[in-house]
Amino acid sequence: MAEDIRILPVRGIGDVHPGDDLASIILEALAQHGIALEGGDILVVTQKIVSKAEGRLIDPQTVEPSHMARMAALHGRKDAAYYEVVLRESRRIVKMDRGVLITETHHGLICANAGVDESNVAGGQFVTLLPLDPDVSAAQLRAAIRDRAGVGVAVIISDTFGRPWREGQVNIAIGAAGIAPLASYIGQADAYGYTMHASVLAIADEVASAAELVMGKVDQVPAAIVRGYVFEPSDAGAKALIRAPERDLFR
Amino acid sequence: MAEDIRILPVRGIGDVHPGDDLASIILEALAQHGIALEGGDILVVTQKIVSKAEGRLIDPQTVEPSHMARMAALHGRKDAAYYEVVLRESRRIVKMDRGVLITETHHGLICANAGVDESNVAGGQFVTLLPLDPDVSAAQLRAAIRDRAGVGVAVIISDTFGRPWREGQVNIAIGAAGIAPLASYIGQADAYGYTMHASVLAIADEVASAAELVMGKVDQVPAAIVRGYVFEPSDAGAKALIRAPERDLFR
Repeated sequence: MAEDIRILPVRGIGDVHPGDDLASIILEALAQHGIALEGGDILVVTQKIVSKAEGRLIDPQTVEPSHMARMAALHGRKDAAYYEVVLRESRRIVKMDRGVLITETHHGLICANAGVDESNVAGGQFVTLLPLDPDVSAAQLRAAIRDRAGVGVAVIISDTFGRPWREGQVNIAIGAAGIAPLASYIGQADAYGYTMHASVLAIADEVASAAELVMGKVDQVPAAIVRGYVFEPSDAGAKALIRAPERDLFR
Repeated sequence: MAEDIRILPVRGIGDVHPGDDLASIILEALAQHGIALEGGDILVVTQKIVSKAEGRLIDPQTVEPSHMARMAALHGRKDAAYYEVVLRESRRIVKMDRGVLITETHHGLICANAGVDESNVAGGQFVTLLPLDPDVSAAQLRAAIRDRAGVGVAVIISDTFGRPWREGQVNIAIGAAGIAPLASYIGQADAYGYTMHASVLAIADEVASAAELVMGKVDQVPAAIVRGYVFEPSDAGAKALIRAPERDLFR
């Protein structure tokens, strides 16, 4: 399989604003730190800076809280206007209890507060929304980097999600371009000739988790490069990681 | 945070048998490939070779299937004796539907078939069971490596788990020694002064996922070294990653 894999933090990405050219910002940060992208690199970028560049910001005080948003605020840590934004980013409430609101977003992602996030937004009154289509965001970033740097990289857009049954959050892939998000070992014989039936690895999620290790939360490292991992090129996108309801025992 | 992180596959680990000295096997494989362990390395080892070394193998044909094991076999891909082993490794059935059996193990881990695994076992008639206490297994391996190589490494024992709502499996940490499995950003101010309330990262799971990228499933790379990640030393163990029922919205 792979030789050594390296995970490089992309430092020096400053604050990102609506309309900013993320590809240029990332390429400039890389150049400042003497890092040249290589073909086959995987560029992992946090949702937060993609959302900012795309203008996916909203001031919750501009929305009128509905009844259910006020109900969420009764027990939650945030105010009703915030929860109204969450509800508008959602197509279904999965769990609503003990001050926690877990919803299914319009993309089909299941996460706390529909991915609406208060932290790391300048000014304080704005919150970020997830990109409208994170796979499209990833494909655009990939194309822009190919145009400007002449290098073919895969792009993963990551976000930090909780999981049932386990403590702590992990980074997962909500968007992807140029990399197959799943690697299938189905039907391959292992070293003893036993044929495995059910080994499909969500490698885009694993790459996102690996990248988180150099990102931290308070250090302004919103991007990383995963180098040396041999992957299958694909335009399937991270939407292939969302399990269809009819295949899901936990719906 | 961290500088570059490297993930190194540990090649040359052959078949592992009950009673084998895993620390020596790993140190020998590393030496053969010219890799010297360094203090602060994280050694990630798959459950499979730990279970084999510990003799956590069973021939399902030696157990008498119960009624419920036969029910599982009606729709599942394996036979009743296999499911009987799964039931005996479990304290609770979480989901049993469409040929899938997801249980809570005696450790509190929730996964398909209680982690009982047919693949990569020589002979074919044996299956592996999870280690009795993976945190103890990790601590013993850590101590043995310190004794023999004079190097303090953290140890994570990984296994491949599915998740609700998402396709594909990822590697997670079922055992850990010498590393705090969770890193908390609670109460730290981010770059804009916003205080984050709920950012606790399951970094042991992220390290396990990162290591999987060099392991593959059919290449006999059952161990990897994650180098350059600065972590908090701790003896909490991976059991700290298991959410207590009273804190879990999905119980």
